[in-house]
Amino acid sequence: MIVGEVVGTIVATRKEKTLQGLKFQIVKIEDMDPEGGGLKPTGRYIIAVDAVGAGHGETVLCAQGSSARLTDKTKDRPIDAVIMGIVDTIEIEGEKIFEKYAG
Amino acid sequence: MIVGEVVGTIVATRKEKTLQGLKFQIVKIEDMDPEGGGLKPTGRYIIAVDAVGAGHGETVLCAQGSSARLTDKTKDRPIDAVIMGIVDTIEIEGEKIFEKYAG
Amino acid sequence: MIVGEVVGTIVATRKEKTLQGLKFQIVKIEDMDPEGGGLKPTGRYIIAVDAVGAGHGETVLCAQGSSARLTDKTKDRPIDAVIMGIVDTIEIEGEKIFEKYAG
Amino acid sequence: MIVGEVVGTIVATRKEKTLQGLKFQIVKIEDMDPEGGGLKPTGRYIIAVDAVGAGHGETVLCAQGSSARLTDKTKDRPIDAVIMGIVDTIEIEGEKIFEKYAG
Amino acid sequence: MIVGEVVGTIVATRKEKTLQGLKFQIVKIEDMDPEGGGLKPTGRYIIAVDAVGAGHGETVLCAQGSSARLTDKTKDRPIDAVIMGIVDTIEIEGEKIFEKYAG
Repeated sequence: MIVGEVVGTIVATRKEKTLQGLKFQIVKIEDMDPEGGGLKPTGRYIIAVDAVGAGHGETVLCAQGSSARLTDKTKDRPIDAVIMGIVDTIEIEGEKIFEKYAG
Repeated sequence: MIVGEVVGTIVATRKEKTLQGLKFQIVKIEDMDPEGGGLKPTGRYIIAVDAVGAGHGETVLCAQGSSARLTDKTKDRPIDAVIMGIVDTIEIEGEKIFEKYAG
Repeated sequence: MIVGEVVGTIVATRKEKTLQGLKFQIVKIEDMDPEGGGLKPTGRYIIAVDAVGAGHGETVLCAQGSSARLTDKTKDRPIDAVIMGIVDTIEIEGEKIFEKYAG
Repeated sequence: MIVGEVVGTIVATRKEKTLQGLKFQIVKIEDMDPEGGGLKPTGRYIIAVDAVGAGHGETVLCAQGSSARLTDKTKDRPIDAVIMGIVDTIEIEGEKIFEKYAG
Repeated sequence: MIVGEVVGTIVATRKEKTLQGLKFQIVKIEDMDPEGGGLKPTGRYIIAVDAVGAGHGETVLCAQGSSARLTDKTKDRPIDAVIMGIVDTIEIEGEKIFEKYAG
C-alpha cells in the first residue's frame, strides 16, 4: 500500500454505470522521509475511490490493482485504486514521523 | 486511476477475435499540476478501450490492469486499460484546475 | 495497452509444460512521438506470447498483466504479456503518424 | 518478490472493516548490491501487511499485487503487499551477502 | 515476460506455510542490447520461485504478477514472480544475441 494526502476531487458525470455514487478523490502520493522528519511528496498523484469517508487534507492508506476492488463500495467495479484507511500515526525507527492530531 | 486527454486512435484489423468492435483510443497521460494551474502531460501515452464514448480532446478517467475488464464492453477480453469516465471538473485545494466547458 | 515492433524471438526448450507450442516474441516498446512524426523507441523490450501470428518488423498491440491470459492461446498459462493485435494505422490529432503499408 | 527491512508501523483506526486486526508494517525496500557486499536501500518504502510476525529491523520477503491476498491473514482483503517470509540468508555468486545472525 | 540471469538464492525459514519447499532464486534482470551484441543488466533484481529447475548462471524467462501463480508449483501461493523457462537462444533482427551453449 501507499500513503498520501487527499487534496481534491474529480467529477465525471458521464461514466460507466457501475460507478454511480462513488467519490473520486485525488491523492497526492507521499513517501517516508525519516531524515526530513516526516512525509515528502513524490510529485505524483493518483485518483482513488473513497471507501472510508476521508476528508480533505487527511493522510490516507491506499491499495492499488485488483485489491482495490475488495471493499464493499468497489466490488466488481472498474476501479484500480481505493482509499481504505485514514492514517493516525506513522512511526519509523521508534520516532513518530506523522501524527494526525499533532498541533 | 489516471487522467489523460484523448488524442488519437489505433486501428488494428487483424486482432484477437474477442476484440472485434472495440474502439482503441490513444490517451496522453496527464498529472495534476496545481502550481501550474491545471494538468501537465507526463510525456507518456496509453492505449485504452473506450467504454463511455469519449470524443477527441476530452479529458478522461482510465482504469488499468484487471480492473479494466470490469465494464460491459471489456469483460473477459485481453484489455488492460479502459476509459470509464469523462472528466467534468478537477478541484485541488479548493481551486478548479480543470473544467470541461471552461472558456 | 502498449505498442511496439516485433524484433526477435526467444527459444526456451525447458519450460513449464503448459507453455509448449507458444511463440515468444521480443517486442521493442515504442511510445507516441507526434512532434517527431511517428513512434519512438523507449529503449525497453518485453517478451510477449504471440496470439495473432505477427511477423518480424510488424507494429503490434500488447496487453500486459492478467489480461494477457484472456486469449485462447494464453488462457490459464503463466504469461504476463500477449500480442493481441497488429496495428494498421495510428492517428494523432488528425494526422496519421503510422501506417502499415506506407511505402 | 522484493526484499526490505521492517522500519516502522502505520496505525489507522478508521479503516475498511475487513482490515481489523491486521498489522501494517513499513518496509524500506532494498536491492541487491553484490559489489557493495550486501543490500542497498532503493529510497522507496511500501506498506505491507505482516503475515509472519516480523519484528522491527528484520529483513523480509514481500509479495505484491493480487498475490498479496494469498495468505490466511490477507485473503479477500483490500491488501496489495504482504510480508510472507523472514530472510535468513542471501547468497549471490557463492558469497553470503546477508546473514540474519551475522554478528 | 522478462529475462535475467540466476545469480543467487534466498533462504527464509520462517514463512507462510504454503511456501514450504519452494526455491527462491535471485534473478538479475537483463534487457536486450542489440547494439552491444547481447544482453545488458538493468541494475535491478527480482526474487522468483523456480518452477523449472534453473541452475546458477542460467538465463531464464520470468512471469510476474498473478500470472506467476499459473504453474503447478506456485498455484494459490503468495508468489508474484516465477521462473517458467530456461532460455536457449535469443535472436534479434536475424542475429543470435544470446546462445546458451555458446562457447
